[in-house]
Amino acid sequence: MLTAPSIDDPVNDASIAVRRIIDALARTAPGDGGLPPVVARLERIAEVLETGAHPVETQLTRIWRGEGVARHDPATGPENPIAPPLTMYDRGDGWAEGTVELGLPYQGPPAVVHGGVCALLLDGALAVANQLSGVGGMTAELTVSYHLPTPLYVPLKVRARQVRRDGRKLFTVGEIVAGDRVTSSARGLFIVAAGVAEHA
Amino acid sequence: MLTAPSIDDPVNDASIAVRRIIDALARTAPGDGGLPPVVARLERIAEVLETGAHPVETQLTRIWRGEGVARHDPATGPENPIAPPLTMYDRGDGWAEGTVELGLPYQGPPAVVHGGVCALLLDGALAVANQLSGVGGMTAELTVSYHLPTPLYVPLKVRARQVRRDGRKLFTVGEIVAGDRVTSSARGLFIVAAGVAEHA
Repeated sequence: MLTAPSIDDPVNDASIAVRRIIDALARTAPGDGGLPPVVARLERIAEVLETGAHPVETQLTRIWRGEGVARHDPATGPENPIAPPLTMYDRGDGWAEGTVELGLPYQGPPAVVHGGVCALLLDGALAVANQLSGVGGMTAELTVSYHLPTPLYVPLKVRARQVRRDGRKLFTVGEIVAGDRVTSSARGLFIVAAGVAEHA
Repeated sequence: MLTAPSIDDPVNDASIAVRRIIDALARTAPGDGGLPPVVARLERIAEVLETGAHPVETQLTRIWRGEGVARHDPATGPENPIAPPLTMYDRGDGWAEGTVELGLPYQGPPAVVHGGVCALLLDGALAVANQLSGVGGMTAELTVSYHLPTPLYVPLKVRARQVRRDGRKLFTVGEIVAGDRVTSSARGLFIVAAGVAEHA
């Protein structure tokens, strides 16, 4: 696995529950009965968590030790409820690939994934492909082409591979596939930080 | 205001509370005391909401009447906890513009906004700018250039404007600005659906 695994820890479990809440809220009308008490309970949970949470400055340091950042990535992080998450594997032929199915919270046009969400997942996938090829970089330019609408509620393959490295420049491509059709594709230019050695 | 306003309704309030929970979870370590009971409470709330939630098929229809979709957009929707949300206004000179400040859940590199999140916000902003110019379209191609790291915990201006319309093709640009520096910029090609009339 190239992305952080979902594991048996309370932050991971909380993130799974919060994803369920986000999904259910997308299917809840403001006038549906019984909602105000749920709001009050969510607010109390927010207060409890905020009281125990680390200050931003501490967390910004702590998260960058170990695998913290991977666990919280907004595209691939199992402990970030914003992330579907996209879990990716080494396909063994240069491609990093994962399968993800997206629901209403990721909707743009009717029953279609938001174009910006496709871009988020592709940027995340290209970054994973760079790591697979030995070293990551900062995104310098990302171009996403939308060939077909990407459907909600269908298993999507998201895959990426690095096609070329020229000094500190990484050239990486990726695509989202529904069934046997490429719905969107991306090409990205990434820049390796100065002084960063290849670690693979 | 060009995006859906945050209003006094329980789904809106629940989304605000869920955003606080997502932010606090990003600052919570798995070993922090008292977390398991919070997980159990989140799971119970998920069950309650899922029981009352509309089936996907119903909601896919319902959400597309009225302003439902705008309220749930993953970039600009106040009732989607994934969205920061980005709230945009008509600047009066052709630009749609909003201010947003992003925290740890939107992080890529240390203290920096994830490149894919910049793309999500820019795609959303370009779509709003198209609506401001009279008619929206589906994203056909989006190119994001990253000039500087976009910082977390700083008010960011996100702005976009349509530069040209050629038949069903819309050409739209946008940028994210921190202080007085453009950190990333985007250009997009959007296609108006066949048969859609301009409504402005």
